Amino acid sequence: MDILIKNCNLISMKENHEKYEPNMDIYIKQGKVYKIGKNLDIKADKEIDASGKICMPGFVNTHTHISMSIFRETLDGYSLQDWLNKKIWPMEDKLTREDIYYASLLSIIEMIETGTTTANDQYFMAEDTIKAANELGMRLQVTRTVNDVAGLTEQRINELEELIKNYNNKYDNITLNIGIHGLYTTGEETVKRLIKMAEREKLPVHMHFCENEKETFDIKNAYNVESATDVLEKYFTRTHNILAHVVKVTDEEIDVLSKMKVNVSHCPVSNLRLGCGVAKVQQMLDKGINVSLGTDGQGSGSNLDMFDTMKFTGLLQKGVFEDSKNMDSYEILKMATTNGAKALKLEQKIGTIEEGKDADIIIINLDSVTCNPVRKCILRFSI
Amino acid sequence: MDILIKNCNLISMKENHEKYEPNMDIYIKQGKVYKIGKNLDIKADKEIDASGKICMPGFVNTHTHISMSIFRETLDGYSLQDWLNKKIWPMEDKLTREDIYYASLLSIIEMIETGTTTANDQYFMAEDTIKAANELGMRLQVTRTVNDVAGLTEQRINELEELIKNYNNKYDNITLNIGIHGLYTTGEETVKRLIKMAEREKLPVHMHFCENEKETFDIKNAYNVESATDVLEKYFTRTHNILAHVVKVTDEEIDVLSKMKVNVSHCPVSNLRLGCGVAKVQQMLDKGINVSLGTDGQGSGSNLDMFDTMKFTGLLQKGVFEDSKNMDSYEILKMATTNGAKALKLEQKIGTIEEGKDADIIIINLDSVTCNPVRKCILRFSI
Repeated sequence: MDILIKNCNLISMKENHEKYEPNMDIYIKQGKVYKIGKNLDIKADKEIDASGKICMPGFVNTHTHISMSIFRETLDGYSLQDWLNKKIWPMEDKLTREDIYYASLLSIIEMIETGTTTANDQYFMAEDTIKAANELGMRLQVTRTVNDVAGLTEQRINELEELIKNYNNKYDNITLNIGIHGLYTTGEETVKRLIKMAEREKLPVHMHFCENEKETFDIKNAYNVESATDVLEKYFTRTHNILAHVVKVTDEEIDVLSKMKVNVSHCPVSNLRLGCGVAKVQQMLDKGINVSLGTDGQGSGSNLDMFDTMKFTGLLQKGVFEDSKNMDSYEILKMATTNGAKALKLEQKIGTIEEGKDADIIIINLDSVTCNPVRKCILRFSI
Repeated sequence: MDILIKNCNLISMKENHEKYEPNMDIYIKQGKVYKIGKNLDIKADKEIDASGKICMPGFVNTHTHISMSIFRETLDGYSLQDWLNKKIWPMEDKLTREDIYYASLLSIIEMIETGTTTANDQYFMAEDTIKAANELGMRLQVTRTVNDVAGLTEQRINELEELIKNYNNKYDNITLNIGIHGLYTTGEETVKRLIKMAEREKLPVHMHFCENEKETFDIKNAYNVESATDVLEKYFTRTHNILAHVVKVTDEEIDVLSKMKVNVSHCPVSNLRLGCGVAKVQQMLDKGINVSLGTDGQGSGSNLDMFDTMKFTGLLQKGVFEDSKNMDSYEILKMATTNGAKALKLEQKIGTIEEGKDADIIIINLDSVTCNPVRKCILRFSI
């Protein structure tokens, strides 16, 4: 089936291009953007009138735990470590494959409803999350998270190998990466094995990093280093790295992260909820780091709504660092789209609306009270 | 007309009472809550099935500039002072009474849509905002803001006197207060006259206070005092005071505010947007200060949605002050309801759902993806 989107306000997110183009048509054929232009004279199986609406690339959520929808709003008032040790991990031990499947369906519906077309998931029993994604047409990057907790390292590594064997390059919408839970839960030997696997398979690494003060302290202790980034410089130089959170790092460590060209997934809502602090996002962007956006799981992040995450991202950088010039709204849109695509090494396929790329497009209806009287108020920020 | 709400999940917000009562009925007669109970055997003109829904008191937004809906998303990246001097004030000079009326209609529709039944407004041409409120059934406390900017002090004071003469005690849903823009824009002589007016009319005072570092600095300079609270201690001891923002105050100044029993209206979204910082709300609550919530106008606050404001309030206190135990969700609901009613001296009429009070009730539909699977997830916090 081919589709013609008529008369939209296009935010293509293409580099060095008009930020906002009114009255544009988009012709989609076999799931790809075939032609973009004004008044396209093409007959399509399906025509969508997008007058007064915005078309833009679907959001890329670069840090999720999709199956955690079943933990939504169950906990409040815990620190990261107490939350994991006392609550989440014991509950996770009881999850069945059926739980994972239905929890994934719920989360994917939530993402589609709020404009996210791609998510980078770190959890377990990924096969059942893939099944849900395929049924609903979602694009995912998935993994089987590995750590050394409870002495189950071998089992987890085996499951990750199995996942790679069965699913790498199997579906066009499903890519894989190597999930390392974090350096405070995963020792040197395991990290070395996982890095080797990432190099062998040419897959990105996806890891939590310096989420709060205690984690940063624990990493230094466990690895006997002066700085958490020392571990990255020792083992992670040849892999493509996606680091979630990155809240508690010094200015010097930000310089190291910039030099290493890591990809940071900023998860502001989760960081606030668990009392972790606010990441220095504007500073990281100024240093050329590719910062994208994540919601984290609903256990800490409440929801998977990237509009919420964008709003928190902009407002926190302005308010907490007391400079209203921080984070213009277009920069935030980039974080939610093109930066996310780059983080997942999917920038050839998604992240912008342009001819030849996959048609991961969202249409945003501005016909609401809070979008009046200004029509360009996507993000609730001026563009 | 009388109304029977059937089978709701009641969050009455009554002190020393169950926080959450399932399967409750509420009978409303002549606009007042007449009876609350299980399985009420009453025939009413209108019956509302609230099964699976939450009933709670309508939110009280204690700091708005209702007519600023027309400035929504027009500006980004300004400090408070530049925003006022270079942008907002010149635009406001051009507003007509017709502008104020339609802008008020839009804002009041937005408030009703998002569960707010009472707002405390500080603007001008309040007569036209009152007209809009009466047409839509909104409860308002209004004023005519006075400051010394542009030498128009006399005109503004006359308009405030006129407003009091024409509207004090005229409508059941409309109350008045004395609007002082701020101590950085209003000199000692004008403040003294307005305080006298507040005492004469027994009306509360509504004033911006210490919104950012520069304002706090300017107050000290203008009044030649060591601390901005010195001015309050000199002139504001016999009035009921509602202070908006209160971001840049020291621990000692918080003690003074507590001793003076001022009412603080916390406006987190606006404070972030204008780069002002984050108010020490948990600390103020711990010191016994009555802190309620405000959205500010849409020029700085983006919207009038108290759900947004509640979410920012809780998450900021946890995240920025790095303690996830800060601000439990019921405390936030109190700020949005009972604390707001107290701030406006309306606690005998609104703020809780109880027999004898006005039926300012909202019904919240939880039938959405983000409210699954937990049904009590109002606020996106556990209750």
